[in-house]
This record gives sequence, structure tokens and C-alpha cells, in this order.
Amino acid sequence: MTDRAYALFEEQQRARGIDVELVKQRLKSFTIETPSWGYGDSGTRFKTFQKVGVPRNPFEKLEDAAEVHRLTGVCPSVAIHIPWDKVDDYEQLKRHAEQLGLRIGAVNPNLFQEDEYMLGSVCNADPAIRRKAVDHLLECVTIARQTGSRELSLWIADGTNYPGQADFRKRKGWLLESLAEVYRAMPAEMRMLIEYKFFEPAFYHTDLADWGMAFNLAQKLGPQAQVLVDTGHHPPGTNVEHLVAYLIDEQKLGGFHFNSRKYADDDLIVGAINPYELFLIFFQIISASADQNPQVRTTVEKIAYMIDQSHNIEPKIPAMIRSVLNIQTQYAKALLINLEEVRAAQDAQDVLAAEDAVRKAFEMDVGPLLTVIREEMGLPHDPMKAFAESAYASKILARGKGGASW
Amino acid sequence: MTDRAYALFEEQQRARGIDVELVKQRLKSFTIETPSWGYGDSGTRFKTFQKVGVPRNPFEKLEDAAEVHRLTGVCPSVAIHIPWDKVDDYEQLKRHAEQLGLRIGAVNPNLFQEDEYMLGSVCNADPAIRRKAVDHLLECVTIARQTGSRELSLWIADGTNYPGQADFRKRKGWLLESLAEVYRAMPAEMRMLIEYKFFEPAFYHTDLADWGMAFNLAQKLGPQAQVLVDTGHHPPGTNVEHLVAYLIDEQKLGGFHFNSRKYADDDLIVGAINPYELFLIFFQIISASADQNPQVRTTVEKIAYMIDQSHNIEPKIPAMIRSVLNIQTQYAKALLINLEEVRAAQDAQDVLAAEDAVRKAFEMDVGPLLTVIREEMGLPHDPMKAFAESAYASKILARGKGGASW
Amino acid sequence: MTDRAYALFEEQQRARGIDVELVKQRLKSFTIETPSWGYGDSGTRFKTFQKVGVPRNPFEKLEDAAEVHRLTGVCPSVAIHIPWDKVDDYEQLKRHAEQLGLRIGAVNPNLFQEDEYMLGSVCNADPAIRRKAVDHLLECVTIARQTGSRELSLWIADGTNYPGQADFRKRKGWLLESLAEVYRAMPAEMRMLIEYKFFEPAFYHTDLADWGMAFNLAQKLGPQAQVLVDTGHHPPGTNVEHLVAYLIDEQKLGGFHFNSRKYADDDLIVGAINPYELFLIFFQIISASADQNPQVRTTVEKIAYMIDQSHNIEPKIPAMIRSVLNIQTQYAKALLINLEEVRAAQDAQDVLAAEDAVRKAFEMDVGPLLTVIREEMGLPHDPMKAFAESAYASKILARGKGGASW
Amino acid sequence: MTDRAYALFEEQQRARGIDVELVKQRLKSFTIETPSWGYGDSGTRFKTFQKVGVPRNPFEKLEDAAEVHRLTGVCPSVAIHIPWDKVDDYEQLKRHAEQLGLRIGAVNPNLFQEDEYMLGSVCNADPAIRRKAVDHLLECVTIARQTGSRELSLWIADGTNYPGQADFRKRKGWLLESLAEVYRAMPAEMRMLIEYKFFEPAFYHTDLADWGMAFNLAQKLGPQAQVLVDTGHHPPGTNVEHLVAYLIDEQKLGGFHFNSRKYADDDLIVGAINPYELFLIFFQIISASADQNPQVRTTVEKIAYMIDQSHNIEPKIPAMIRSVLNIQTQYAKALLINLEEVRAAQDAQDVLAAEDAVRKAFEMDVGPLLTVIREEMGLPHDPMKAFAESAYASKILARGKGGASW
Repeated sequence: MTDRAYALFEEQQRARGIDVELVKQRLKSFTIETPSWGYGDSGTRFKTFQKVGVPRNPFEKLEDAAEVHRLTGVCPSVAIHIPWDKVDDYEQLKRHAEQLGLRIGAVNPNLFQEDEYMLGSVCNADPAIRRKAVDHLLECVTIARQTGSRELSLWIADGTNYPGQADFRKRKGWLLESLAEVYRAMPAEMRMLIEYKFFEPAFYHTDLADWGMAFNLAQKLGPQAQVLVDTGHHPPGTNVEHLVAYLIDEQKLGGFHFNSRKYADDDLIVGAINPYELFLIFFQIISASADQNPQVRTTVEKIAYMIDQSHNIEPKIPAMIRSVLNIQTQYAKALLINLEEVRAAQDAQDVLAAEDAVRKAFEMDVGPLLTVIREEMGLPHDPMKAFAESAYASKILARGKGGASW
Repeated sequence: MTDRAYALFEEQQRARGIDVELVKQRLKSFTIETPSWGYGDSGTRFKTFQKVGVPRNPFEKLEDAAEVHRLTGVCPSVAIHIPWDKVDDYEQLKRHAEQLGLRIGAVNPNLFQEDEYMLGSVCNADPAIRRKAVDHLLECVTIARQTGSRELSLWIADGTNYPGQADFRKRKGWLLESLAEVYRAMPAEMRMLIEYKFFEPAFYHTDLADWGMAFNLAQKLGPQAQVLVDTGHHPPGTNVEHLVAYLIDEQKLGGFHFNSRKYADDDLIVGAINPYELFLIFFQIISASADQNPQVRTTVEKIAYMIDQSHNIEPKIPAMIRSVLNIQTQYAKALLINLEEVRAAQDAQDVLAAEDAVRKAFEMDVGPLLTVIREEMGLPHDPMKAFAESAYASKILARGKGGASW
Repeated sequence: MTDRAYALFEEQQRARGIDVELVKQRLKSFTIETPSWGYGDSGTRFKTFQKVGVPRNPFEKLEDAAEVHRLTGVCPSVAIHIPWDKVDDYEQLKRHAEQLGLRIGAVNPNLFQEDEYMLGSVCNADPAIRRKAVDHLLECVTIARQTGSRELSLWIADGTNYPGQADFRKRKGWLLESLAEVYRAMPAEMRMLIEYKFFEPAFYHTDLADWGMAFNLAQKLGPQAQVLVDTGHHPPGTNVEHLVAYLIDEQKLGGFHFNSRKYADDDLIVGAINPYELFLIFFQIISASADQNPQVRTTVEKIAYMIDQSHNIEPKIPAMIRSVLNIQTQYAKALLINLEEVRAAQDAQDVLAAEDAVRKAFEMDVGPLLTVIREEMGLPHDPMKAFAESAYASKILARGKGGASW
Repeated sequence: MTDRAYALFEEQQRARGIDVELVKQRLKSFTIETPSWGYGDSGTRFKTFQKVGVPRNPFEKLEDAAEVHRLTGVCPSVAIHIPWDKVDDYEQLKRHAEQLGLRIGAVNPNLFQEDEYMLGSVCNADPAIRRKAVDHLLECVTIARQTGSRELSLWIADGTNYPGQADFRKRKGWLLESLAEVYRAMPAEMRMLIEYKFFEPAFYHTDLADWGMAFNLAQKLGPQAQVLVDTGHHPPGTNVEHLVAYLIDEQKLGGFHFNSRKYADDDLIVGAINPYELFLIFFQIISASADQNPQVRTTVEKIAYMIDQSHNIEPKIPAMIRSVLNIQTQYAKALLINLEEVRAAQDAQDVLAAEDAVRKAFEMDVGPLLTVIREEMGLPHDPMKAFAESAYASKILARGKGGASW
């Protein structure tokens, strides 16, 4: 049935003018970075539920990530978080990754868990605390060099809880000053990806509250600084795909932290709450990948697709596999959009035809396509099932409860 | 200057037709319940910062609450949370409270911190877990009897994170069934206050998501069940004062959990983000307190005014005093609304005059009034300053860090 | 290719345990009501753009609706709006509908366009205005009798723009009093469907602001009163499918006003912004249609599926056809959910399996299924294309601009 | 009583270290621009209620504005809107304004009411429509020269309603290209104030959706382009005062469109829904007005404070006076913040002290201060009452209904 389904799929797509071989090629080369912390326990402020089998150290996290890569074939890199993944010897961590068929992806500093950061890190009114924060960022640049990472992924959690608590403009200055020092320390091939967030953990103001602030900061720092879009970090209603297109056009989109949200920064499995939004994000990316401007095309090529979620109630490895499959599914659907058809309808200002040209690809079933691709890549048809039945799934139970959670 | 200020205030208010003696009387008899957990450390999912001097056990929490009552004069009761305030001998806890000039207020069960509750407590598909949850609620009824409390304050954190995860309607049935058993176990003078919350810790659906669900549940349970309005538990834009008036009219408003929010359930100091909303809530309450319907008046008289906040970055006792002062300030301002004037403008459908009749009371300065009231009650003029200079403030430092946080 | 596609579809679904014949039967008998006003010009407060070819009177609106029914086969009834569809002889309107193969659906009174309603209609402080409003509602009951309609569909736009402007609780009383009179005038087979709306045209408070208020009102009125869910009338983030399940469980869901929204009450084409939400709504309905409780099943059977949109920039008839197709598509997908599989995963509390059992049906392609159904019903495969190429599409151009817009 | 009240006020403020003379001086020189369209009828998409006495042409609108200025003393300029205020002879309009003691303020082009603009104006895919739009903008530059206006105030309503409808990035390019041409046509002393809006009238994407897009555009255009903050144009929860501070710091805040909102772009009377937000905006402005950086100070000096509201149910002139008074009230309160005290608490990172230093000014009564200022300026104590009793109020009734509404 699978073969017939794929044959029919191919025939249908060709009839629509879709270059199926190109679609397959793009799907095979599309990679997603998983985060080390996504394999550990996480929770809400009310409770972190502990699971049996979660990794107890950075090395085990990499092993879990390798399992996800083994089953999905598209997750060759792993983001690390310092100090959660602090080790004595980063060369050893790098080698461990390599032996598992992985490489170290973005290095994520932590500027929110030290006691000193209660009222801010790089935006703190106390210069000694800012110094500490900058030193930590510089340490992460070093770790990135040591692990072969090429991205410093910055989430600045700084903000205030009350009107009057702090001086917005002074903090803005300190933020720029701090990151400028870090920027200067980065080697030429390293990128600084700057994240923004509407709120939380601060509840009155957040120093980097939206894409505009992250963008402006990246503009001031220079070409190696770009913006990181976390799909859950916006006010309700925000048209995220518009921001994506905007940032690509400015050559300032550096990457994504994928996850789903219905309310705030819910950090659920990507694609689980509003899959159409994810599809529309990919539509913008794919459109721009064929842009006349080579700098726009280069920007698109360098986008880092990273998952950043909190698996509060889910088993960790299956949650990660599901996330990868959801991203792949929507990316595949978006690749079936006939861009010529879209363009023609847009040029004719035919609203319903243009909308239809995009939406109908979303309604197609890419199951047969993904199955064949997995087959060709030597992967299990159903990575979720394959994991459930794997020896690895049972083996990790021996780790017991109480892993290296954050 | 204080005396002259008050004399002028009195003169001005009398000229406006305000019965200043009645206002003073109502302010003196208006009491606010503080929560035991508000004296301990709390945090976000990212970090709980530990403060020096927070209470190490339920007895010390009561001592801190007594200090707040000593300085403000309007906080004679303390809400407790089980198991955070679990003690071997609840009679002893009650006596401790009494010796401090306090009484035990609402008893708050905890249905979210046991491992079994990961996928729900009273709404869990597993009957054994529902049994455990109901047993805990029944235990809290017993504790309420033992401590002289007359309110069981229920926050059901149950919900799901993903579409399809659970059956909404079955869970609805289990919820009713569970609470009905608890309701039947309550003595006649006890009230069950049912809280609702838009989201968090569940991020797809919450079993008691809004006032309508809590209200309908309270209707089914009977007259001893009422709704508890937590001011931070609504979608953005919600007209909370409208819900308050609505519930009073249905004789189903049982009480409040006061706090401030700008984004989600931020749990900041009440009155710090949008003080006008707090004032408008009191406007509805005060209006209804003069209703022709005696049942409406009784409903208003029994409203439990409780604080429920997370003091993540603030010193705990000052944060509590500030909260009490903010509530008092807005209540005092609302008492200065000339209800006759409002009614006349409303009857004449004069939009701007009616709006003015309400808003102008908000713009008045109730400082002189509150100062005189504190004087007459034998309290310090400035409770914040009085605490800062108190022996108590220094004494508790000896407790060190790492109190009985939640 | 179509035949092979359908054959494969059938084979795949049977292998999954889906009763394809039952699915087809349900799809064929699933009907959607279109609104007369959806064929006319509408706009925002900034501008109503006028289209060539929109109907100039109620009779032409019915003709357009008949065209939509002719092409889709599932739109046999048309909602009317009084006074927009006011005619001298309602028997004639009814006959006109019948001759077109249609029947008159819900009658929608208008309580927001008369000058007197500026500050409210049935909630107005002026008894003469309330009288006028009730009389209009009674007139609509009569019109419903005359046209054979069995639903009175009520949207009460009443509310206030400023704090203090009016007395919430008095208005609540007037609302009940007014609708009770109308309820008593309804024949036994008529239903009153009560709509609610978060805000607009009132911007401070809305008298029927949420499902809870509509539900409580319907409870007080009696069994012929039910709640109408307009999918665009909720605060951001609201879990609409949860409300749907809740109201079904209470046997108080009367029907839907379908449309899409991203921000406020945007009134875009249903299924265009977040198709997964529409699918999840149908998932709840389909689940409940197999409930053990016969009253729940009856409630589901009687749900009125109505479209209510503003086609500000779209050609009207194509916009309506697209809406019908979008609803059908998501309903068809939801029918492919294997409810046994969902239930088993829910009972086992297997979060990811339960989620997968629902989501995977959404990812399927129902194109082949819908094509075959249309074929069996003697309908064009592609109703959008069929309309574009129809004589009707050209014929209506003769109407010119400036139709009977609202 | 007024004299005593003011004497006490002055004494109290001096004791707090406030320079009362400076406060008075700043209040007297603080001016607010009213919009010509705010004197006419406006409405929602559901209905525009017509009032008796609204102006029938641009000259009468200026007369109403002059009445507001006569009574409040702080509204010497009037924003005009083209084509709503189109006249044959703009010199004559200017002279009319001057004779009334007014001057023409910002010129507001209209890019949303022509039929051609249905799918966009300066972002339209059709170059002829973009040309028309740019020509209209150039016409407005000419009108601004002729009327002595120094601000071109741009609200670009362009956007789309459906995914796929148009190409975000192409439209972004056309927007820049169009405004660049207009920018080049402006005389050196003219400013372009660029507004942004979250949504409406477009409901899927808006080309200038947030401050970041307006800011980036202004950066590209040059120093004469700045951002205009409409207080109602943000997603729920947005910290507007933070954006204000941010834009001032970048020397890109050009002005405000003041109004109130609870839900979307409600356009209610400024200060009526959340007065604390308005106060906090002024706190940021006042703080920056004492900045060390002269360019920051210059930016603050040039801020244009403009009202932009829809008085759907209110009498127009009273609504405008109330708006002016509300702004004045919050500005006056913000002037009572002791910035030294704030700074000291901020430097000490004393959260509660810093919050208190700001909030307590908000709780003060500035009534006595404003009364005295009005007295000194030869104005009525109570402008609302003065208008109600004025001959002007009766005189305009002769205009009848059906004025020059938008």
C-alpha cells in the first residue's frame, strides 16, 4: 500500500508542477537541532515531575540526542546549556558527540539562575553583576570554540516586576555595552543569535521584549549578530510568519527556537497547537530561498532550526521525536506549495486564489512522501514506534529517577 | 500638616455629601486575609531566589502574619495551605494563632504537587488518584474544623497539555462527583470557595477554566459553594468588575484572591499594575452593599478578601504590608464615590457625568483619611516605615536562608 | 487518477478501522446554513468597499444562496436578518425560497442599528426603549412563524463604553425580563439561540460577554433556550472546543456562527486562519454524538451550523463557497479520527498516543473522499471553479454596484 | 476652600522637595493637539450614531476646537485630515484657524477610503495605485506647507486578510520606496510621523504592524522621520511606557495619538480605562527630559501630543474637553514624582522603595493645583461645566444632525 500511495503522490504532485526530486532532496538535507535540556525533567513553577530514565549528565543527554538522530536522521547537532552542561573537559564532550555521530550546536549561556541575577544580569544596575554576566558570556564563547560550536544563543531574561523599579534607558545602554564586549570576542565564523521574549520571568517589563529590540541591538552589534525567533515568545495574535519574512528581508534572521503555545510561553511540542502557523512560517522561508538577492538566500541557508521545549508531562525522547516529525511534516507540506501559482494569483490580486494556492498544500497528506524518504535514508518508517520497541527505551530505565534536570 | 490635611479632606467630602464617619467606620471594619505562603520564598519556573529571614515553619509564618496585623490593624486572619502548613497538632496551630491575635482563615488544599497528580487530581482518569485527591480534600475539611476555619478554598489545577489527551466531558463529571462528596462532608457553617483559572499549569485546557464553569459547579453543589475570583486568572481584557457584579447578583461571589497582573497569572502586589481596576471592583461591591435585596447584601457581607501573591523578588513582609495598604487605598477611594450622583447620572443616561462621578473619587487623595484612621486605631502612620525600623525586621534575619518555601 | 486516489483512500481508512460508508453518509447529511447578509457588502468602521453584482434585495440574496447550495449540495437553509431582509409579505419570501430549493433558517433580529439603541436595547435604562426592543423581538418570532423558521438567533450588542456609565446588575435584570417575555411568546418547536461576545461594539463592558452569561440566561429561560457559539467572540487563547464540549454536556449548545479570527472578531472565512481549531471543535461534537446519554445525542443532532462572516474584500459567493468547503474539509477529517483508538489511549493516560490519534486524522488528505461524495450527489468536483465558469457569475454583474449592504 | 486646598498642596509638595513653580510652568506650557475628526460623528462597523450639533465642514470643526482651547487653554493646534478637511483654499483655512487663535497641526493623509485602496495603497501590487497613494501624500506635503503645518502624520492602513494573499517582502519594499519619495519632498523643518498598528482594518497581517517596523522605516528614511505612538495600537499587555522610553532613547519618538483601550483599538477617551498607564508614560517622558544627552532632551521637547479618538456615544466637545483634562491630570501627577528619590531607590536596587516613589505621586490629588493654574491662565475652574453652561453649547444645536462625519 505504501508503494502505491507514494506512486500516486508523485503522480499527483508532478501533475501540479511540483519537482518531487527537489522536494525530497530538500527534506533530506533539512536538519533540526535538539536541545540537551529537552531530554531532562522540566516543569512549571508549581511542580517538576520527575521521570524515570532521564539523563543524569551531559554525556547521557548526548546519547539520548543520538538516539533521536538515529531514528529520524535529521538531528545531527545538539544545543548545550551552560552551566547545565558544564563539564571539566569540553574537548571530551565534543569527542563524545562525534563518536555518537553528532556535533555540538548552539551554546546557550544562563543569565537567570545565579542569585546575583535576581534583578538583572547584563542590565543590572550593579557593575560587578554585569561583569559577572559578561564573563559568563565570554566563557561561553570559549566553550563554543572548544566544542566546535558556531552559535552563541542568547536569551537575556532581564526585566523588572514593578513600575519605577529600574531605569529602562540605562539598562538599554548596559545591555548594548555588555553584548558589544562579547561580540568583539567572537571569532569571525561565530554568530550571536539574540532571543527576545514578551514576558516571564519578569512581569512588568522585559529588557529585550520583542523582535524590534533584538533587531535593533543586532544592527548595532554588526553582521555576526542576528535575531532568534522563539515561536512562543510573542503577544497573542502576533503574525509570526510576518516577522520571519521581515527579518529575512533585513538579513537578520538567525534561527528559531521551535515550540507551541496557546496562552503564554507554554513550551509545548512544536506543531501541536497550531500546525498551520508552522506551515506558514516555512512558506515564508521557502519563498525567500528563491529570492533574487543573494544575501537573502544566504540568510535563509544559514537559519538554525532548533527545538526549545519543556516536556513537563511527556516522556522526553518520544516528545522530541514527535517534535522533529511535526516540523518535518509541515516543512514537507510547505514544499508542496506551487510558488508560481501563488505568485500569479498575488500579481493578479486574486485574494481567494492566492489563499487557496497556499492552503491546499497544507491539506495534502505527506505521509507517503516522508515514508519513502525515510526508506531511502535507511530509517525506520515510524520513528515513534521504532523507539517504543527499541532496546534503548528499556535500557535507560536503569538510570532511575532524578536526572540532571534544570 | 496632617491635621490640617484631614480637616480639609473632611470638609471637602462633607461638601460633596459624603458621610465621612460612615466611611471611616467601614474602613476600620474592612479586613484582609494574608496567606501563609506569601511569607515564604516563591519563584518562577526558572528560579526561586531565596531570601534571608523567611519563616522556617507554619508557626513562624503566623508570627510574620501577626507582625503585618500589628502594623496595619486589618489582617486578623491567615490562610493556610496543606501540606505546606501541615503540623502534628492543629489545635496547637490554632492556639498559636490566637496568642498572636490571629485566627486561621481559609484552608487551601494542594492538588498539584503529588506525583500522582501529573495528569490530574479530582479529574484524573484513574479512580485511585481521584480517591486520593478527595481524601485530601476531606482531610482539609477536618483541618478546617480543628483550626476553626470556615472556608475551604479550592484551586483545582487540573487540565491537559494536548488536544486529544483526555476526555473533557468525563473529567467534568469526575470533578462534580468528587466535589459533591466533599461538599456533603462540610459542616453547615463552612463554605467551599471554588477558584477558576484561564491556564497554567496546564497549557491546552483547564478543567475549571473560567468563572462560568466555577459558577455552574457551585450551583450544582448548593448554597455553601461559591466562586472565588483570583484577579489574575482571566484572559487579557476581561472586565473583572463585571464578573464581580454578576456573581454578587447571583449570590455566588464567595471571595477574592487579590494580586496584580499585566500578562498572565503574574501574581504581583495587588494594585501595583492597574490600580483603577481594583477601585472599580470595590465600586461594584460597595454599590451592591446597599442593594434592596437582603440576599445580595448578605453575599457582600460574607465576601472573603484574601491576598494570593508570589513575592519573587520582594522582601516578604514589606510586600505584604504594601499589598494591604494598596487594597485599603483603593477601597477608601471607592468609598468616596457619591452613589446618589452616580445613580442620577445613570438614570439620565448621561455617559460623561456618570463616568465622572466614579473616576473623580479615584483621583482624590485618601492619605489624610488613612492616616487619621490609623491614628484612631493606635497604629503607626506609615506601616512600611514602621516595619523597616522595627526590631522584628532585624530579629528574623537570624532565621537565615532556606525557609519553608513552596 | 481520482478513482485510484479514492480507492486507495478507502483501503487505507478501512485498514485503520474506519467505517467509510458511515463517514460518507454523515458527510452527505451534514448541512450548513448560509446567512443572507454574507452575500452583501460589509466593511470595517473605516470603509465598506462596494462590489459589483451583490444582491439588491432579500429575494436576490436567496438566489445567491441557492447558487451556493446548487454547487455544494449542503446549504439548504438561509438565515435572515430583520430589518435587512424586511419584506411586505413573508409568505412570499418563504415561497421564493422554496422555489429555489431552500428554506428559511434562523431569524436574526437587529438590536443595534436604531438610534434609540445607542446606549442599549433590552438592557437600556429607558423602559420605552426596552419595550421597542422586545416588540422587535416579538415581531421576529412572528416572522419566524410565517417563514417556517424554527430558530430565533439573538445577538444582543448591548454594553457600555465607560466605567460607571450604567448599572451592570440592573441591566442584567432587564435582559432576563425582556427575553423571558420573548421566550413565552415562542411556539413549542422554536428555539432561542443566545449569542455572546467578548466586546464590540461596546468597549468597556458587554452585557452578554461570555458563554457563562449566555448559559446562565438560557438556564433561567428554559429548555427552548440554548447557547450560540460564534467562533470569533472569545478572548485570545480561549479553548473554544472545550466550551463546545461543556455546553453539549449541559445540553445547552444550540448552534454555531462559524468564522475565523486572528485578533478580535475579524469575521474572516472559517477555517482560513486556524483550521486545526475547527477540526478540534468537530472532534468534540463527533465524540459526543456517540454518547450513552440520549439527551446529549439529541443535543448534538440539533446543532445548527451557521456561517456568519464579513466578506470585506472577497467576492461574496466564492467566499461563501470556500467557507462551506473549509467546514466540510475539517468535518471530514474529524470523521477519520478513530474514536476507539483515542479512548484506549486516554484510558491508558498515554499522552502522546492520544494526541497522535487525533492529530493524524487532521494530516490526512480528504480530497479524494470529498470528490467522490460530490460525484455521488451529482455536484461539480470543484465548486469554486464551477462557479467561476458559471452563467450565474456573469449574470449577476448586471446588478451593478450598491446592493442591499448592511 | 480652593485657596486653602492649594496652599496646603503647595506646602506638602515643597516638603517633599518638589519645585512647585516649575511644575506650574511646565503644566502651563504643555499643549495638546485636538483632531478635527474628533468633533464629528464616528462609529463602529455596526452603526454610526448621528448627533445634533456636530460640525458640517472644516471651518466649523475649527470653531469647535477653538471652543475647547478657550476653555482649557492648552489646545492651540488642530490636526486635519485630508480629504475630510479638503477645502478649495488652504490659506483661507489657515487664516480661519488664526482668527480663532489656533494653528493647523499635523496633516493626516487618508490611504484607506478610496476604492482603489481595498488591497493596499503604498503597498499595493499595482504600481498605478501606489502612484495614486504617493501623489496623495505629496499633496498633503503641499497642504502642510500651505497651512503652516510642520508634521505629516502617516497611518498606513495597508495589510492583508488571508495567508498567501500577498508578498510581505515585496510590500515592504514598496512601502519604503513610496515613503522615500515623500520624505524627499518634505521641507527641512517638516517631520514625518509614522504610525503603526497591530491590526484593523486588515486582519491577517498589517504592513506596519508594530513599533519595530515603524522605527526601522524611520531609520532608513532619515532624521526627519520619527515614530508616532498611538496608545491603542498594541497587542494586549504591551508595556507602552517601555516603548516610549526606548524610542526616546533612540531619538525616534515623534509624538502620540492618545486614546484609551481595553480590548483592541477601542479609541475611547484617553485616561478613562487605565489612567496609571498614561501616568507611567509621562513618567518616562519627564525622566528623559532631564537627560544628560542634549539630543534626547531635544527629542522630548519636540514630542507632539495629539488626541485621536472615536466619540461614538459621547457628545463631541465635552468628550474632547474631558480628554484634555485627563491628560493634564496625569501629566500633573507625573510631575510630582520626585526623580531624585526614584533614582536613589533605583541605584540602591530597592524594589519597593522605587515603586513607591513613583506610585505615590499617582495617588495625590492634583485638583487644587490645576484649579490654581486655570485661575492664573484666566480659564474657568471647571471647563466641563463651563461648556455645558456656555452659549456655544446651545448655538451649535442649530447645525442639526448629519455633520461632516467620517
